[in-house]
Amino acid sequence: GDPAARLLDLLARFSACGATPAGGVTRLCGSPADGAARGLLARELAAAGARVAVDAVGNQFGHFALAERAGAPLVMMGSHLDSQVRSGRLDGTLGVAAALGVGRALMAAKAAGAVFDADFCAVNWTNEEGARFRPSLLGSGTYAGHHDAAFALSRRDDDGVSLGEALAGIGYRGEDAAPAVPACYLELHVEQGSVLEQAGAAIGVVTRCWGALKRDVVFTGEQAHTGPTAMPRRRDALLAGAYLIAEVRAIAERWPGLVHTSVGRVRVAPNSANVVPARVELSLEVRSADDRALAEAGRLADAAVAAAAARARVEAAVASRSERPIRALPAAPCDLVALCAAEAEHRSLRMDTVAGHDALSLLGTCPTGIVFVPSLGGIAHNEAEATDAADLAAGLAVMTRAAHRLCRA
Amino acid sequence: GDPAARLLDLLARFSACGATPAGGVTRLCGSPADGAARGLLARELAAAGARVAVDAVGNQFGHFALAERAGAPLVMMGSHLDSQVRSGRLDGTLGVAAALGVGRALMAAKAAGAVFDADFCAVNWTNEEGARFRPSLLGSGTYAGHHDAAFALSRRDDDGVSLGEALAGIGYRGEDAAPAVPACYLELHVEQGSVLEQAGAAIGVVTRCWGALKRDVVFTGEQAHTGPTAMPRRRDALLAGAYLIAEVRAIAERWPGLVHTSVGRVRVAPNSANVVPARVELSLEVRSADDRALAEAGRLADAAVAAAAARARVEAAVASRSERPIRALPAAPCDLVALCAAEAEHRSLRMDTVAGHDALSLLGTCPTGIVFVPSLGGIAHNEAEATDAADLAAGLAVMTRAAHRLCRA
Ligand SMILES: NC(=O)NCCC(=O)O
Ligand SMILES: NC(=O)NCCC(=O)O
Repeated sequence: GDPAARLLDLLARFSACGATPAGGVTRLCGSPADGAARGLLARELAAAGARVAVDAVGNQFGHFALAERAGAPLVMMGSHLDSQVRSGRLDGTLGVAAALGVGRALMAAKAAGAVFDADFCAVNWTNEEGARFRPSLLGSGTYAGHHDAAFALSRRDDDGVSLGEALAGIGYRGEDAAPAVPACYLELHVEQGSVLEQAGAAIGVVTRCWGALKRDVVFTGEQAHTGPTAMPRRRDALLAGAYLIAEVRAIAERWPGLVHTSVGRVRVAPNSANVVPARVELSLEVRSADDRALAEAGRLADAAVAAAAARARVEAAVASRSERPIRALPAAPCDLVALCAAEAEHRSLRMDTVAGHDALSLLGTCPTGIVFVPSLGGIAHNEAEATDAADLAAGLAVMTRAAHRLCRA
Repeated sequence: GDPAARLLDLLARFSACGATPAGGVTRLCGSPADGAARGLLARELAAAGARVAVDAVGNQFGHFALAERAGAPLVMMGSHLDSQVRSGRLDGTLGVAAALGVGRALMAAKAAGAVFDADFCAVNWTNEEGARFRPSLLGSGTYAGHHDAAFALSRRDDDGVSLGEALAGIGYRGEDAAPAVPACYLELHVEQGSVLEQAGAAIGVVTRCWGALKRDVVFTGEQAHTGPTAMPRRRDALLAGAYLIAEVRAIAERWPGLVHTSVGRVRVAPNSANVVPARVELSLEVRSADDRALAEAGRLADAAVAAAAARARVEAAVASRSERPIRALPAAPCDLVALCAAEAEHRSLRMDTVAGHDALSLLGTCPTGIVFVPSLGGIAHNEAEATDAADLAAGLAVMTRAAHRLCRA
């Protein structure tokens, strides 16, 4: 059938894995829904003629033997099948489904006599979102050597379940070797912002990623009764959290449009209406495309942690910190994508990614590119996330052209 | 043996039900630990000669037949065996264990020839704390007719389990009729504040309860990506929560010592580091002994909910509100307790209760009194909660004297 129609059909079948009533998905990494989506991918890859492998951290690879010679270079495309809670059906899944479609198209071309110089690999990276296990980009980061597998497998969710246990539970703690570093990695993803829609362009060529500073902060106060305990003697960990959340927001307001800040996750203990909270854990982020603003906003956030703790008379600790630097993406993949978009008669636009993507893990490891299609209304991490079918088809067409150019002899 | 020594021994055995490593207890209502404590109480009551009954909402009654005539009035003492998470071993348990000790003493006196005009009942009220199911004082409130049993049994914890299901799970969804309203109800409890300790008094005679306003507030924003989503378009439910928590604290600062405020419980959805929260649920309290301050602080809290929502561009709803009025306790039980304290040569002090207690549910239903013993350092709802053994003995002695005076012919 028509590749675009097959893509839509496959996306619909992935949507059924962890479908939510409002048309989104909840497919947390290592959950039964993730297992179902992985199973669907494995069957489709095998049916398309790929050899399927699962590495120690659950990354799923579908190897399409095109070049028919040992040591042929590898062109890799993919993204992730995990999702946030009540999130969109395209975030990550689009890139995986498109990579499968590209592999199928290459195999069809080969059957029709095309000669290839490189093999192709479609990949599903484990725990991109960071929704259940932190940090995000964990599978791709492990593949690229930023973490070792033992670290990744030992990450725990809020119920204390490790990634290793969760993967074993769905049968995806693999034993296969991961493929060697590819000659090129390209990832198709929904934009998750409004730039393409506002510009009327179907294809985004990502030339730069915003930097991101992430902190897990722990405030420790003193558990007490909310009734008789005198106000001045309270050491309220949640009050410190509230001061910090408000101040983190205020930091972004110093650099309108240039710095994004957030606190998305809070855990309160013991979390009872009539108990002054003893312990609050929260996750904050600072993102920017400007090196000085990022560094200064990060310093302000760290100062805000200390100030909030002092004001509420509690202790503060930073349990984990991660930093993703602002980086330019290499020119060659960008130029290739722009060329393929032009050939396919789609308007393309060079732009930033603010969100992290697995491709960023591979930056510096191999030539790496990110391709965006528009997100309707810029809606992301939300069940209402959507992209026009024509734009999904444009994305697939550009990825398929790029794969042909990269793999053909 | 010596009644005080038996009390300490019994308290130690209750502490083993849900013991925490730091010397406290986690014994949430309807949990296996609660079931274990209830089982211990039932065995001890039966061994002491009481007839044990469990009503529809799990309230446990131990009836000591002293008067040996139908229709004899009932004197009731007790408190609750449920606890907060990582909380103190005496909060509630002291009053239940003391009531059992009082029952035993009365039975011994009867065996030795004493003649009684009233029967005695020791009670363990279900879900006093409000830690797992809200509202607090649920079992006593149902007994006193403020709620019906169907309402109480349908309350759900944060995992969606109802009180009825939880009680059934531990075998304490009873079918016995609750006893008729008693002629007098007295409750022994740890103070949970510092007033007695600072005054050097062993016995607190509670003459008044502070009022309390409680609200469960829900903020609804828009789930979004913390990366690409522009700051001005975010509708962050957690930011509204943070503004509210800080403002609720500020309200108390207008009336130093006169108004206590708190937010102890927050639930965030979806609660992921890189997702702008869609929904935040929080529980706030305002407490005061001054009617005008309570009403005005309550108005300010309601206004703060609306202001926080407007500032963060989210919707606010108040999911539940409860109000406990400031009330004087009746004079006769106070005078009786003060007399018994004097007879036993313990210094007593008339004072307020800031915390709610099951006795408050019965106010207006029958003559009701609350007796406090000191809390070391005023520590409450904390594993470090403690009371000197001499003060525990003083509390038991006063309760025993009061029971004799109330029940003897
Ligand atoms: N797919 C996706 O939105 N990932 C989130 C990574 C980030 O937090 O930037
Ligand atoms: N036992 C106890 O502290 N109960 C709490 C009731 C209240 O919130 O005032």
